[in-house]
Amino acid sequence: MNAKTDFIDCEVGYDIPALPGMDEADIQTPCLVLDLDALERNIVKMGEYAQAHGVHHRSHGKMHKSVDVQKLQESLGGAVGVCCQKVSEAEAFARGGIRDILVSNQVRDLGKIDRLAHLPSYGARIIVCVDDVANVTELSNAAQKHGTILECLVEIDCGANRCGAATTDEAVGIAKAIDAAPGLTFTGIQAYQGAMQHLESYTERKAKLDIAIALVKTMVEALQAAGLPPGLVTGGGTGSYYFESKSGIYNELQCGSYAFMDADYGRIKDEDGNRIDQGEWENALFILTSVMSHAKPDQAVCDAGLKVQSLDSGLPVVHGRDDVTYINASDEHGVIEDRHGVLRINEKLKLIPGHCDPTCNLHDWYVGVRNGKVEVVWPVSARGKSY
Amino acid sequence: MNAKTDFIDCEVGYDIPALPGMDEADIQTPCLVLDLDALERNIVKMGEYAQAHGVHHRSHGKMHKSVDVQKLQESLGGAVGVCCQKVSEAEAFARGGIRDILVSNQVRDLGKIDRLAHLPSYGARIIVCVDDVANVTELSNAAQKHGTILECLVEIDCGANRCGAATTDEAVGIAKAIDAAPGLTFTGIQAYQGAMQHLESYTERKAKLDIAIALVKTMVEALQAAGLPPGLVTGGGTGSYYFESKSGIYNELQCGSYAFMDADYGRIKDEDGNRIDQGEWENALFILTSVMSHAKPDQAVCDAGLKVQSLDSGLPVVHGRDDVTYINASDEHGVIEDRHGVLRINEKLKLIPGHCDPTCNLHDWYVGVRNGKVEVVWPVSARGKSY
Repeated sequence: MNAKTDFIDCEVGYDIPALPGMDEADIQTPCLVLDLDALERNIVKMGEYAQAHGVHHRSHGKMHKSVDVQKLQESLGGAVGVCCQKVSEAEAFARGGIRDILVSNQVRDLGKIDRLAHLPSYGARIIVCVDDVANVTELSNAAQKHGTILECLVEIDCGANRCGAATTDEAVGIAKAIDAAPGLTFTGIQAYQGAMQHLESYTERKAKLDIAIALVKTMVEALQAAGLPPGLVTGGGTGSYYFESKSGIYNELQCGSYAFMDADYGRIKDEDGNRIDQGEWENALFILTSVMSHAKPDQAVCDAGLKVQSLDSGLPVVHGRDDVTYINASDEHGVIEDRHGVLRINEKLKLIPGHCDPTCNLHDWYVGVRNGKVEVVWPVSARGKSY
Repeated sequence: MNAKTDFIDCEVGYDIPALPGMDEADIQTPCLVLDLDALERNIVKMGEYAQAHGVHHRSHGKMHKSVDVQKLQESLGGAVGVCCQKVSEAEAFARGGIRDILVSNQVRDLGKIDRLAHLPSYGARIIVCVDDVANVTELSNAAQKHGTILECLVEIDCGANRCGAATTDEAVGIAKAIDAAPGLTFTGIQAYQGAMQHLESYTERKAKLDIAIALVKTMVEALQAAGLPPGLVTGGGTGSYYFESKSGIYNELQCGSYAFMDADYGRIKDEDGNRIDQGEWENALFILTSVMSHAKPDQAVCDAGLKVQSLDSGLPVVHGRDDVTYINASDEHGVIEDRHGVLRINEKLKLIPGHCDPTCNLHDWYVGVRNGKVEVVWPVSARGKSY
C-alpha cells in the first residue's frame, strides 16, 4: 500500500481529514486520530510479552482493518501475521502485502470460498476455521480448482456459545475429514472465548477461561489420540491473553484492542483490581471532535454523533477532561454537558470511543499524530469489507 | 453521477455486492437491498401528500446519503431539493447534480465555511442554519470571498433541546444580522423537533408538536413584526409531518426515513393506533444476510453483525419470518434463534434494520431489486462524509 497514491485528488475535508505535515490543530473533524507514541508503546509491549511467554502473537486485524497498523505490529511487535473475520478483509490484507492470514471464522458461501482459495496465489499463507464437516468438501474443491493449499483449524466453542464444535467427537471428525481432503491441511484449533473478554472482574474472567482451557486441553488430547496433534492452538484477546499464554495449551494469541484501547475495555480490571487503561495499555485511538453549537449555557454540541462511532458498548469518554461529559448522541451530534460553560465554539475534544472495532469501521482514515504534527495518514484498508 | 463509472475494476464480493442484471439469489452478503417497488410507492405517496396539503417536501439526504435516491425523490416525488447535515454531504449532492441543498445544521469551522461558500459555484442554491449571531460574520466573509450568496435560516430549538435559538429576541437578532450581512440572505426558520419523532404514541407526539408549532408561530410573528417575514418555515419528520403540514405555519417538510423505513420507526403508531409500517409506509430497505454456522441445533449464526448495522435503536427484525428471531449481535455475527432448526447454511434472510440512517452510512452500495433481479446498484454517495 503506497500511502502517497491514496492522496491523489484528495481534498482535505471532503475526502480526507488531514495531510501529513499539517499541524494537529488544523485536522478536520470529526475523524480518528492515533497517538503514534502510545500506539507504538502498546505494540512493543505486547510483542515483548508474547516473546517472554513463549507464544506467538497474531494481531487481530478485524479491530483496525489497516494494512499499515498490521505492518507496524509485525515489524515492531513481532506479530507472526494477522487474523480477520471476512474474506474481503483477507483480500485487503493480502493485497497490502501481509503474508500470513487467518480468517478466524467460517466461510460457507461458494463464491466466498472460491475467492478464499485464490488468495494463496498472492504468496500468502491462508488459514480458515471449520465447524461443520460439510464445509470440508467445499473448501477442498475450491483449493483443488485453484491449485492452492488452504490450512484449516477446527473451531471449538469454548464458551462463547456462537460458532464452533462442541464435542471431541465432532472436532476429531472434522479434523480427520480435513486431513483426508486434497488441497487442505489440518493445522490446529481455533478457540476464542469472546463472551468473557469484557467482564470487569478479573476473577470472573479467569473462571470462564479456566473452563475454556480445560475444554481445549481435552480437545487437544483427543486429536493427539487420533494421530492429529494440532500445530496451532490459537485464541485469546485483550481481556484474557495472560490466561491463554500461561495455559501450556495455547501457542498463539489473537489480541486486537490492546493496540488502540477503548472506553469499554478500559473499564475492566487486572489481577490487582486496577483498570487496564491505567498502566496495562494506553489509549492510542481517539475521535477528534469540535464544538459546533453552544446555544445553551450549560450544554455544548459537538460534531461527533452516531455516524462516527458505535454506541453498542456505551458512550465515549472525553479524554483528559473531568469538567465536561459526553451525555447523548444523535446521528450527527454529540451533546456535551458543560456545567461551567467552559467550552468554546470550534474547541476540539478527544473522545475515547466506547468500542473501537465498529467505530474504526466507520472511517476511511487514521490520522497519526506525534508532537503536535500529523505524521501519517493511513487508510482504513478494509473499511466496510464485510463480504 | 454516472453509475457505470463506479463499476470499473469492481470485483463482486470484494468491492461490490452485486452487479445489475444478476439474479437476486446471487447477491453477496451482507449488504443493503432496496425493494424498488416499495421505495417508489413510498416516494410517490409522500409527494402526493405534500402536494395535497400545499407544502413542499425537501427530502432528508442524511438518511440515504444517495444522489440516486435523491434524484428519484425529486423526479417521482416532487421533492424541491435535499437536506443534509454536513458540508461534505452537501458537496457530494452538489457534485452529483442536486441543485437545491439545505445544510440543516450549524457550520462553524472556518475551513468548512469556506467550502460551503464555494458550493453555489456548482449552480446549487445553498441554505444553512444559524443559531449564534457570531456565525453571521464568518458566513458573510466567506460568501464575499467566493462571490456567492448563502441563504440562511435561523434555527429554533422547538423542543429537541440541542442546537437552536430559544427566545424571539435571539432569533430576531440573528435574522437582522443575516439580513444586514453582505453575501447572505435571510430565508426563514429551521424548526425540527427531533426528540419526539420516535415516541410510539400519536397523542404524545402531537402534544410535543403542539408546543413546537406554538413556539414557531410566536417566532414567525416576531420576525414579521421586525420586518423580516420568513420565506421558508421548514421542519418535520416521518413521525410528525402531518402536524407540521396542517399547522398553517410550516411550508416545507423534511422527511427522510419514510422512504426506506426501519424497525424503530415501524413501531410508532398512527392516529388510529396502527403501526406506521402497517399501511402508512412500506419497508423498502433490508440488510441481506446469510446463515454461515449452525453448530447448535436451535441457533443459527448469520453474517450480519455490528459492522453492517447500527444497534442504537434496537435489534433488527427478520422480515417475513415469525419462526426465527435475531437475538444478539457481535462485530461480524448475528445470532438467530431457530427453535425448530429450520434454517439451512447459506439460507438468506432479510433484516429490517433498527435504525436506517446510521446503518446506511456503513455501506458503500444499495442493491436495488425488482422481480427477483438486480436492477440497479447505487453508490451510497455520501457514505462516511462526516466532515
